[in-house]
Amino acid sequence: MSEPLKIAVAGLGTVGAGTLALLAAHGDLLARRCARRVEVRAISARDRDRDRGVALSGFEWCDSALALAEADVDVVVELIGGEDGVALDLVRAALARGKHVVTANKALIARHGGELARAAEAAGVTLAFEAAVAGGIPIIKVLREGLAGNGIDRVYGILNGTCNYILTTMRDTGREFDDILAEAQDLGYAEADPAFDIDGIDTAHKLAILSAVAFGCDPDFDAVHVEGIRHVSPLDLAFADDLGYRIKLLGLARVGEHGLEQRVHPCMVPQSAPIAHVEGVFNAVVADGDFVDSTMHEGRGAGAGPTASAVVADLVDIARGKSVPTFSVPATDLQSLPAVPIARRYGAYYVRLMVVDRPGVIADITGSLRDHQVSMEALIQRARKPGEPVPVVMTTHDVEEAAMRASLDQIAELETVVEPPRMIRIEQL
Amino acid sequence: MSEPLKIAVAGLGTVGAGTLALLAAHGDLLARRCARRVEVRAISARDRDRDRGVALSGFEWCDSALALAEADVDVVVELIGGEDGVALDLVRAALARGKHVVTANKALIARHGGELARAAEAAGVTLAFEAAVAGGIPIIKVLREGLAGNGIDRVYGILNGTCNYILTTMRDTGREFDDILAEAQDLGYAEADPAFDIDGIDTAHKLAILSAVAFGCDPDFDAVHVEGIRHVSPLDLAFADDLGYRIKLLGLARVGEHGLEQRVHPCMVPQSAPIAHVEGVFNAVVADGDFVDSTMHEGRGAGAGPTASAVVADLVDIARGKSVPTFSVPATDLQSLPAVPIARRYGAYYVRLMVVDRPGVIADITGSLRDHQVSMEALIQRARKPGEPVPVVMTTHDVEEAAMRASLDQIAELETVVEPPRMIRIEQL
Repeated sequence: MSEPLKIAVAGLGTVGAGTLALLAAHGDLLARRCARRVEVRAISARDRDRDRGVALSGFEWCDSALALAEADVDVVVELIGGEDGVALDLVRAALARGKHVVTANKALIARHGGELARAAEAAGVTLAFEAAVAGGIPIIKVLREGLAGNGIDRVYGILNGTCNYILTTMRDTGREFDDILAEAQDLGYAEADPAFDIDGIDTAHKLAILSAVAFGCDPDFDAVHVEGIRHVSPLDLAFADDLGYRIKLLGLARVGEHGLEQRVHPCMVPQSAPIAHVEGVFNAVVADGDFVDSTMHEGRGAGAGPTASAVVADLVDIARGKSVPTFSVPATDLQSLPAVPIARRYGAYYVRLMVVDRPGVIADITGSLRDHQVSMEALIQRARKPGEPVPVVMTTHDVEEAAMRASLDQIAELETVVEPPRMIRIEQL
Repeated sequence: MSEPLKIAVAGLGTVGAGTLALLAAHGDLLARRCARRVEVRAISARDRDRDRGVALSGFEWCDSALALAEADVDVVVELIGGEDGVALDLVRAALARGKHVVTANKALIARHGGELARAAEAAGVTLAFEAAVAGGIPIIKVLREGLAGNGIDRVYGILNGTCNYILTTMRDTGREFDDILAEAQDLGYAEADPAFDIDGIDTAHKLAILSAVAFGCDPDFDAVHVEGIRHVSPLDLAFADDLGYRIKLLGLARVGEHGLEQRVHPCMVPQSAPIAHVEGVFNAVVADGDFVDSTMHEGRGAGAGPTASAVVADLVDIARGKSVPTFSVPATDLQSLPAVPIARRYGAYYVRLMVVDRPGVIADITGSLRDHQVSMEALIQRARKPGEPVPVVMTTHDVEEAAMRASLDQIAELETVVEPPRMIRIEQL
């Protein structure tokens, strides 16, 4: 058996403690699989004394995470989090010292992935981040290796379990967003400050990483168009059911003639699409390749066990001596793709208006659609309450988003339209 | 850029021609991803003159596939098929000469995988077979690398698109098995001789390979209990719907206290299980790991493009210099697990009887169940036709299969039971 793979772990929160627990539970199994042992040598965390349910006594303790870059180890595992600060300093320092880096830090990779990949490859070491996207689903490996024979046309997914839990529960119960969010916070499915999840930032970080791996480009977080789920109402979920759709918060990236489209927003997806049936806290990623057609990968997106599984998969790769280009092609060869603005998005739309139920209101609305060359597919106005606000729902044929928005801006000004129009993009998957 | 990876391709049927087409279409993309070119140098097939839609003129032609083992190439791609014969001879010869082997041959790996893995690893070369299981789904890589941090508890899947197409269409249309099979043959979804698919052999080959990779043991095809879908009736599919299940042909393997359980048969799966929604010709594999929990991977299981995608993924691994143990642990370290006989299967059952509608018949049936300690969960007898045969459907609580079978053998002897009892295992997934 070869020399053990020596690792240092920075950050002992849920994922860090889970990683130590996994390595302790499966030491012998991993030794068989890697033909060498994977051994934790040094650790660092903010609080030395907190009970994490795992034994720390056998490891060298460093008060400073940065000191781990100097430790006698082969790999630094960065589980601190945050797009800058200590996490970035540690990863840079470790790579500069010729150490492999494994991280679960999506913000870090989404923001600095290109720079760090070039540093890693120049130093001849691995920068691995399977745990940064969709927890237990080995989607980075699937895209970078399993589908390496394909040109990837499109990659999209449910990348945030909190949002999917909220949308699933709203649909199942008919209750309002705020109500379900509060419940999710009580259950520990949502953070005390939920903005990062429900406003789509977390999904956008993950999407920027998926894009980079799928298309061989630098992660470009700033180019992601991001909308969250705060404005989705139980009404929309009910109308979606009627129309044959489900509402999911998707991150979606595709390369077209104008460049790279990256967007995060609530979508209406056909009930016949496999991803429509991914429920609760589960995540799923679909990759469409030009030879393989569509593949979907589903599993838990967060939690100690699934995320530790991903961290350790990266460690096993390193222990086995495997190395592949960070973003599927050598970092010196990453392509630069122009960002397609959301106004260029071409597709169908669902629109919900709250209008005063009076003669002529539909004519004003459809007139505005016509003026902007938006072609309506269907219109539903079920409730009748003369003189009072009622929902009117429309779906459109495919149209460019700029035209859709211009029409909605005009419709919003109508005196009979009493709430801002709600628009949800319909995706044909 | 490094030296090109030189390959020889034996067999130019659907998959062989698809592989050449992929390599021709993506030569430059693969060169970026591998930092070297992947070049076909030599080919062999039965018929040199058949039009396959791909240019063969640039390649050395060998009338004998075996001669490819002697060609000046790094990798032999075996796409001939068959568990013995030329395919086996070629793979043995190629490994003996220190060449990597990539194959799509499930029968070969299910039958001879252990021997060939030991030969490959002794020679320091790779034996790769991603294309042998579930076509475009990179499930071998997922199990062997992506989930390498987990003890795998159970792996199961829909591994045959023909069977899933037939079952899906029977359910959607209410038509009989023979009718749909004939239609599937016309559409090219089923072979002229469909036995291999519909009797479960193809699924069993794939399951034996999945087991070996998941549990680190020699593939043991002979230990797989195999039943096909010929006896599934539209009646069963309709009752399944009523009871909250779908019927799927699954291959399922798990390790328990008595050893390794490997079985292929129609299953009732809860409609809430993700795999219940995998329809038509699609395949899916679920792997349950002790840290990652459940993950599902869905995609096309056959066809030129998806299978070529898998073959080329293996070639990319080799071109990138990646090598992992064939069945997750070094071949010299594969464990031997006792086979659990099907009589030891413990779980719930669905039973459909055709009985003459007369007083006392249910008492005879329930008496037999009681005598064998089989506990009934539900009984449905909808139709009433006094004196004529009507279906009676029962579901049981968990019980060992030996008891269930003994009871059914007794029930089959009852004068009022006019057809052999049909039994479908209920799986809690």
